[in-house]
Amino acid sequence: MSGEDNRAYGHKTFSRSRSHFRDRITADGRDGWPVEAGRYRLVVSRACPWASRAVISRRLLGLEEALPMAVADPIQDDRSWRFTLDPGGRDPVLGIRYLAEAYERRETDHPGGVSVPAVVDVPSGRLVTNDYQQLTLDLATQWTALHREGAPDLYPDGRRDEIDEVMAEVYEDLNNGVYRAGFATHQAEYEKACTAVFRRLELLAERLAGQRYLVGDTLTEADIRLFTTLVRFDAVYHGHFKCNRWKLAEDPVLWAYARDLFQTPGFGDTVDFDHIKRHYYRVHTGINPTGIVPLGPDPGGWLAPHHREELGGHPFGDGTAPGPVPPGERVAPEGRPA
Amino acid sequence: MSGEDNRAYGHKTFSRSRSHFRDRITADGRDGWPVEAGRYRLVVSRACPWASRAVISRRLLGLEEALPMAVADPIQDDRSWRFTLDPGGRDPVLGIRYLAEAYERRETDHPGGVSVPAVVDVPSGRLVTNDYQQLTLDLATQWTALHREGAPDLYPDGRRDEIDEVMAEVYEDLNNGVYRAGFATHQAEYEKACTAVFRRLELLAERLAGQRYLVGDTLTEADIRLFTTLVRFDAVYHGHFKCNRWKLAEDPVLWAYARDLFQTPGFGDTVDFDHIKRHYYRVHTGINPTGIVPLGPDPGGWLAPHHREELGGHPFGDGTAPGPVPPGERVAPEGRPA
Repeated sequence: MSGEDNRAYGHKTFSRSRSHFRDRITADGRDGWPVEAGRYRLVVSRACPWASRAVISRRLLGLEEALPMAVADPIQDDRSWRFTLDPGGRDPVLGIRYLAEAYERRETDHPGGVSVPAVVDVPSGRLVTNDYQQLTLDLATQWTALHREGAPDLYPDGRRDEIDEVMAEVYEDLNNGVYRAGFATHQAEYEKACTAVFRRLELLAERLAGQRYLVGDTLTEADIRLFTTLVRFDAVYHGHFKCNRWKLAEDPVLWAYARDLFQTPGFGDTVDFDHIKRHYYRVHTGINPTGIVPLGPDPGGWLAPHHREELGGHPFGDGTAPGPVPPGERVAPEGRPA
Repeated sequence: MSGEDNRAYGHKTFSRSRSHFRDRITADGRDGWPVEAGRYRLVVSRACPWASRAVISRRLLGLEEALPMAVADPIQDDRSWRFTLDPGGRDPVLGIRYLAEAYERRETDHPGGVSVPAVVDVPSGRLVTNDYQQLTLDLATQWTALHREGAPDLYPDGRRDEIDEVMAEVYEDLNNGVYRAGFATHQAEYEKACTAVFRRLELLAERLAGQRYLVGDTLTEADIRLFTTLVRFDAVYHGHFKCNRWKLAEDPVLWAYARDLFQTPGFGDTVDFDHIKRHYYRVHTGINPTGIVPLGPDPGGWLAPHHREELGGHPFGDGTAPGPVPPGERVAPEGRPA
């Protein structure tokens, strides 16, 4: 996943790499990559919170056909993300075994590692972008011609300042903060990160106590980015990353907020707890040398009633919910709450 | 602690050593060690659940003066338990720096490692016993002449079969089961142990739903042995040992039962969460290579009302609660719930 590789363990302080490939796919094609149905392939891991943002946005916006998706094995090997879940161990469209091959076709001996999400140009087989911060904003604002009817506006013009501000705080303290806590090699560094995680969670719980979504009364990009961290919290960040002051399930406001999103079409139907747990617990041998994957926590609670509809709000604004998950993209039973 | 040392990590299956030194201190002195006030020294770590049984029994029975106690540093070094908390790094009574010295005086090159709880004969400086299974039974039944007035009968004659049966199940699945889960090096071995832990917890929750204590309506040895595992559950077994199907705090019955005991004089006043967390997270480098000690969970909840008195029962039977903790034995503020 983005910026995360084994080199992180050697650092005194965990630092996330900036994406190296930052071309944008835009409506006007200014970087040489115009929005075009069927031209690109989105490569993700369902384990990765950064990639999962794009998986959710794509569902909410109805881009499944226009932007097909490849799902990598949650366990990387020494050549990183691989297509071992596909027949013959190759992505059926790109024909490659490793995502690294698309990176190499773009730039030989590129720096910065191989990360998801990644968008690959299918005709040339070359990577276009691995810019996890920009990608979903472009899906929301540049791919509009290909959005489904009733797609929500996830990054509305009049609210971008507020959305950006919330997302910056959530990124620093939470999205990336849990990694700083988990990969810390010094006690003080861990304590600083873990303290910030819970300070931010407490502030968010206050904000969300009387308000259904983070910014206004409809879903925005800010909710997607908070959700991808919250849905992993009890499954991996609480134990594996030692963010254990309390479980998400112990905070009434945040737990109800997270369940509300989980039960909204486009969110929970993208989540694979099996991929999430196996990735974190088996790949990070620096913090879990045995590679044992815990049996808990029971994910059944994600389906319990949340009562957040009592706060009002319109999840999709003037739009509508996305339809069902395309058959080929359904999460396997072992990854879903019972 | 008992049977636990670094060799455990090399085993395919974690197995707890049987105590090597099994002499008994008895009223009739049949093993050459008669009960005698002030003659012996109980060496413990407050981190260790096996040693903590003896710390609690000693408090409940009022043996603080008759059987003085030495508290080892929660962090062992390569020579095992040490008296680095004491002035000059020596136990003030035995004059030794390492518990291993008392073991060596008893038997040169003894097998089986150095464990707590250990009872040392003060005049000779020799270890008498490290038999964690027998020790507390003998405190309850052999040291009666030195018990305080109002001491409870923790191992009553008429209930020993039932107590023994409960303790055997709790030992297998829980007391030792959490270690088998935590030290597992194979997924199947972990899953078997973790499944047994929660199956046993569920059975115990059923048993305790309408009954205040494990056996009858007064405290017994069985409650002590269950408590020393439960009090460590959320602090270390849940995350560090991956027993994470749910937290103790998420089970209404067991959480109330555990708090009831915690708030009973002689139980919670012996618990040092700082020693517990630092020991597990810093000593077990095979499962926590960074040695980072988590900030959570917040132990404040241990002091919340439990309402178990509504079930009736007489904690001390015909006896009374123990008095306050002797001043020199009070747990430091950083180890206590706020």
